[in-house]
Formats: sequence, structure tokens, C-alpha cells
Amino acid sequence: MREVCVLGVGMSRFGKFPEKDLLELAVPAVWEAIKDSGVPAKKIQVAYCGNVMGKHCLGQRILVELGLTGIEIVNVENACSSGSTAFRGVWALIASGAYDIGLAFGAEQMSQKVEGAIQLDQEDLETGQGLIMPTLYAMKANRHMQRFGTTREQLALVSVKNHAHSCHNPRSQYQKTFTLEQVLHSAMIADPLTLYQCCPTGDGASAAILCAKDVAACYQSKPITIAASVLLSGRTNMEPSEMASSELTRRASQAAYDMAGIGPQDLDLLEVHDAFTIGEILHYENLGLCPPGEGGRLVESQQTWIGGRIPVNPSGGLLSKGHPLGATGIAQIAEIVWQLRGEAGGRQVENAKVGLAHCMGGGVGGVDGAACAIHILKR
Amino acid sequence: MREVCVLGVGMSRFGKFPEKDLLELAVPAVWEAIKDSGVPAKKIQVAYCGNVMGKHCLGQRILVELGLTGIEIVNVENACSSGSTAFRGVWALIASGAYDIGLAFGAEQMSQKVEGAIQLDQEDLETGQGLIMPTLYAMKANRHMQRFGTTREQLALVSVKNHAHSCHNPRSQYQKTFTLEQVLHSAMIADPLTLYQCCPTGDGASAAILCAKDVAACYQSKPITIAASVLLSGRTNMEPSEMASSELTRRASQAAYDMAGIGPQDLDLLEVHDAFTIGEILHYENLGLCPPGEGGRLVESQQTWIGGRIPVNPSGGLLSKGHPLGATGIAQIAEIVWQLRGEAGGRQVENAKVGLAHCMGGGVGGVDGAACAIHILKR
Repeated sequence: MREVCVLGVGMSRFGKFPEKDLLELAVPAVWEAIKDSGVPAKKIQVAYCGNVMGKHCLGQRILVELGLTGIEIVNVENACSSGSTAFRGVWALIASGAYDIGLAFGAEQMSQKVEGAIQLDQEDLETGQGLIMPTLYAMKANRHMQRFGTTREQLALVSVKNHAHSCHNPRSQYQKTFTLEQVLHSAMIADPLTLYQCCPTGDGASAAILCAKDVAACYQSKPITIAASVLLSGRTNMEPSEMASSELTRRASQAAYDMAGIGPQDLDLLEVHDAFTIGEILHYENLGLCPPGEGGRLVESQQTWIGGRIPVNPSGGLLSKGHPLGATGIAQIAEIVWQLRGEAGGRQVENAKVGLAHCMGGGVGGVDGAACAIHILKR
Repeated sequence: MREVCVLGVGMSRFGKFPEKDLLELAVPAVWEAIKDSGVPAKKIQVAYCGNVMGKHCLGQRILVELGLTGIEIVNVENACSSGSTAFRGVWALIASGAYDIGLAFGAEQMSQKVEGAIQLDQEDLETGQGLIMPTLYAMKANRHMQRFGTTREQLALVSVKNHAHSCHNPRSQYQKTFTLEQVLHSAMIADPLTLYQCCPTGDGASAAILCAKDVAACYQSKPITIAASVLLSGRTNMEPSEMASSELTRRASQAAYDMAGIGPQDLDLLEVHDAFTIGEILHYENLGLCPPGEGGRLVESQQTWIGGRIPVNPSGGLLSKGHPLGATGIAQIAEIVWQLRGEAGGRQVENAKVGLAHCMGGGVGGVDGAACAIHILKR
């Protein structure tokens, strides 16, 4: 299997732009990644597009506007992991030797379609009984509090941290600090999760140019290596006690650490799927940043802030940077690339050498996630 | 790049089954492929699902019903080539060495959603002006008739042939012969294409188990090798004269022949994307079965019938076997596997050793196809 690296990344500002269609969101992000990579557009041999809510053949529709025709184009969907799935699809084709250079991008236009929270699928049995995302995460939070003594304040601190981080990210949907009190006293959505503990809906796009390591030197002197790519779906028959954990993230991260030949102690930063504050706390534990049950205390001790032992979501994460479904996974990759290059400005993690991106997609029929993608990047 | 083979295939009967949902269509097809392969289900490491009209995370929704959880699952969409795209996705991951064994499947439930022809997308510029699939193919047919002297009778003979073939296919949507007169005098849809020259909408599913060649012997003595896998999208700036051709299929088939180290003269049978009769005639030429302009005469001389020089669509093709979008590509693969194994019953192509599957997906914004997938299989 050939080593693959990232040569360039691009990203729109995330936010609510009901006046922009998917083309207007995606085209600048793709161009930015191409320009950033140093690769002439005509050298791109394959493109994967991640999206959830758009039209069929979305990748083709967008790339024809860029004159990127004639190549292999594939559209993938894996709920919130759609972008990461696109990234991995291109990785696999280059790793196999089928191609040398590819484009992965993700895009989502939600504000034209979604009012407030994502609409419910009335045909889903669990959904019909009220088990939508905020309530599912609220159950996890309650279980974690009951089992490990995690506090409402610790949960809320994840939001305080990520909003603080995103003040230094000009592409973030929100660029504003919130105090602990503000987070705790925002509207209650699903107890104990308040409004500012739930990621917003939004619009945006992201893109990356991937390249076989052995030809990367033709284009750039600072390629970022993909040390691990893992994508897995959840298992059924969760024990009730598993509500306070995620077997899926644990399994996927272990596979990724094995593939990269490192452990969590070797990471300098992470972008983690913090759709809800409890998610980030759970994933600290699932990803091995701290022992089970210690996630709340990890954020409270400021170890996951920029400047702490192991910064998590320096970009602002889904909670503050935003979460336009198909764009999220590759935006995480983009943040890690900028950090590893030392280009992250006011949110730079000092001397970052190894970063991990973790993205989760939906839950279906009693499994704890439809898709968990983990990518480890290193310079 | 490792060699990959097909160990098992499965397929539902195609047809209109408004009472069946996607689960009911897909589960038996997937099980059939697994049983046919000899691979224990728990050995499957990755699954790709091809679908156009279903819900998000469809692959996960279907596979959880089979207990196939915990593995990598990816949902792909590439219009009518969605199934072929899923097949190629699994091929790439096994070829890369990431996995040894994978499942590709496709499924579509159209009869619950579509009345008559596929609904129009009013936002599309070309569609708004009437350029829907039947009219686009009718333009191609008129151009071919005007340029090469192709006759209405030659066009209609493609339908006569494919319906005759499908009488021997118990999984075909139609299993009934039509005379030339019946085809010519069926309702006019878009001159010169009559009703029986247009593929039906329908429901169905198909599946294949892929395996690295070097471990296939553990499970089966008759693996079918994937000699070539190619997926490309169309180019812009077609010349008007290109209406009577398809640059995309020509390019994709040339790449596939190069990859397999063979030429069209080495093929024993083909499954070709005959959504409309003119499509099959054009693709005879694009795939190199005859010189440009000679497609009409090729079918008229009975060379592409079972028993002829180079049988095309022994399964009945999209015109008669049916075309449930996401299921079509892997159903073509299944037919070729059955033919190469000598298991095709009354429609068996004698001593078939090499077969080619050709699938086209939609056209977008002036390109001559969003996705063309070609797979060459050999025993």
C-alpha cells in the first residue's frame, strides 16, 4: 500500500448563507485546495464528493463548473461522516496505486432546507418515540453524570472552550466567547444539554488534494502524511452501560493507532466530533486521552484547551465552527493540516507534529453510530 | 495492486413491487451473494451500497438487519452507475491491500416513488427545455439515422433481441417476446423511440462478494477475476457531431481494455447500458464491437444475439430485465459471473470466458455522462 499525503486544503467560512447554493459554497473551497496544493487542476485524476442533502450527482454538478470533467467522480453519503468518507475513498484509490492525485471535497447547504433542528424522519421507530440526536446525547450525558460524577459545569466547559478557540478562526460560524454561566443558562434543549451545548446547523464546504507520497515532491516541499485512515460502523446489541461510552470510536481509534504505529500520547492535537458537549467528553475517553469516566475532569483541568497538554478542537469544533454535515469531515482535516504546517494563526498549537481527526455519522437501528472515520496526519 | 475476484453474486427478481421496501428487496439478494460465495458473513470487512432514491445511510439500515454491523460501510450515488460505483469502491479497497473480503450491493425502490417516467428536475436548465432522457436519446437516434443510415427497424431490433433473451431469465422484469412490428407500433415516446425501446422503471437489488485473489482459494475453486475496473465521467464541449457517439464510453473502454490487456475481439459477451435501443447501438461502436456507424447493421445481422458472434445483453438488458437504478450495475456483474461459470441456463453463451459490463449514469450540464463504469471479468 502506497503512502498518501495531503498537499492542499480549502474551506469556505461556515455559517448560514441561505442565498448561496451548493455551487457557490463548494467552488471557492475546491479552488483554494487546488491552489494551496501546487498541483495543476488537470493533474487531478479522481474526485470524491461528500454530501447528505443535495441533488444526485452533486460532485459532477459542482466540478463541471470548474472544468474538472472527464475524471472519475464518486458521490458518497455517510451522514455526518460523509466528508471523511470522501477523503478515505480518494485515499484508498491512491494507496492502491490506481491514481497518483485526487480531490476530496464535501459541501452542504442546510439553511435553505432546515428550520431549527434537522427534521425528523417519522418512519424511524426510534425517532417516532423521541430518540432524536439531542435526546440521545442527553441520555448519554445523564448516564455519564450518574456513573462517573460528571457535572453540568464540566459539560458546559466544552462549549466555553470551543467557542473561545473559534474566536481565532476567521472561518468559524461563531467567533464569540461565552461564559460558563451563559452556556449553562441558555435555553434547555434536552436536559442537561442547553442550546449552546448543541452544534448549529449551517452551510459550508471543504476540500483537500491528496497525492501519492512518492510523487508529492514534484509539487510541494511540505506534504502532510496520512499515517492512518479508518472507517467503521457501529455494532448492535449495546449493553445499557455503553450509553456512557462508544464502542465504535474505541475500536476505530485503536485500529488507527495501530495503523499509524503510535498511541494517544503521541498526538499533539485533535479535531473531535463535538456535535454535543457530552460527545467531546465521551470521545476523550474513547480516543484514549484519559481513562473512562475522567473526560469531565479533563476539560475542567484545561488540558484540552490550546496551551494545555492535548488541545482538542482548536478550530472551534462542530459546536462553534459549525457543522454543515458533508463539509465537516474535511474541514477537520484542513484544520489539522494548517496546524501541522504552523499556519493556524491565533489558534496555533505550538510545534504540532501529529494530529487526529475524528468524525461520527448518525445512529441507525440501535447501533452506536453509522460511521466513525478517523484520520491521523503527521508532518 | 492485488488481483481481486468475485466469489459470489445475488439478485432479486426485477419488477414493480410497490409492497416491498428496500430492506425486503435487498436482504435476500445480499444473502444469496454471501451463500453463493462460500464466505462466512463474519469475514466481510467492508460493504459499499449503491442507491439513488433511498434514505441516507441506506447501507447501514439494510445491513443491520442482516447482523452485518461493525464493518466499514459506505453509501455511494452515481445515478444509474451507482451499483457499479459501489462494486468499484470495494474493488479499490481490496486491491489496495486494506481488506481481503468485501460486499458490494445496490438496491432501488422506484415503484413507490415514480409514476410513469422519472420525475423531472425543474431546476435543471436543460430539463426545463425538454431535454429529458428519452428526448436526449431520441436526438442521438435521429443523428445516427441521418449520419449513418441507421433504420427504425434496426433500432427496434435491439428491443426484440433483448426481450427474446430475457425469456430465459427468471429474474427479468419482462419475460415475453415482442415482434418487430409490436416494438415499432408501441406508443411513440420520443420519435423514433417507441415505448418498448425505453427501459421500464422498477424495483430490485443485486449483490456481489469480492475477495483478494490470493485468499480466494480458501473459499471457492471457481473465482471470477476482475481483469479491469474503470470509472470515468464525461467531458464538456462536445462537438454537435458527438451526438451520434459517446466519447466517455470510448475512453472508459479503452482504459479497461488496456488494464485487462485485451481488446474487444477477446470478449465472449457483454452487458451494455441499453436504457434506450439507440444506446445499445451507440455502445456497440463505442466499445469497439464494430466500426462507427455500423451498430444498426450489427444487430440486424444477428451477431449480438445469443448464438451470434458477440452476444450483448443475454440477461435481457435494461430494456427487458429492468433498470432499478442502484441495482443495475451489479446485476450486470451477476449476469456475467453466471455466464462465465456456465450457470446461465437457457440464455447461456457457449464457453464464455471473458465478459464486459458497461454502465452509464446520467448526464449533467452538457457532458455526455456523469459516470461510465466498465468492468471486465474473466474465468
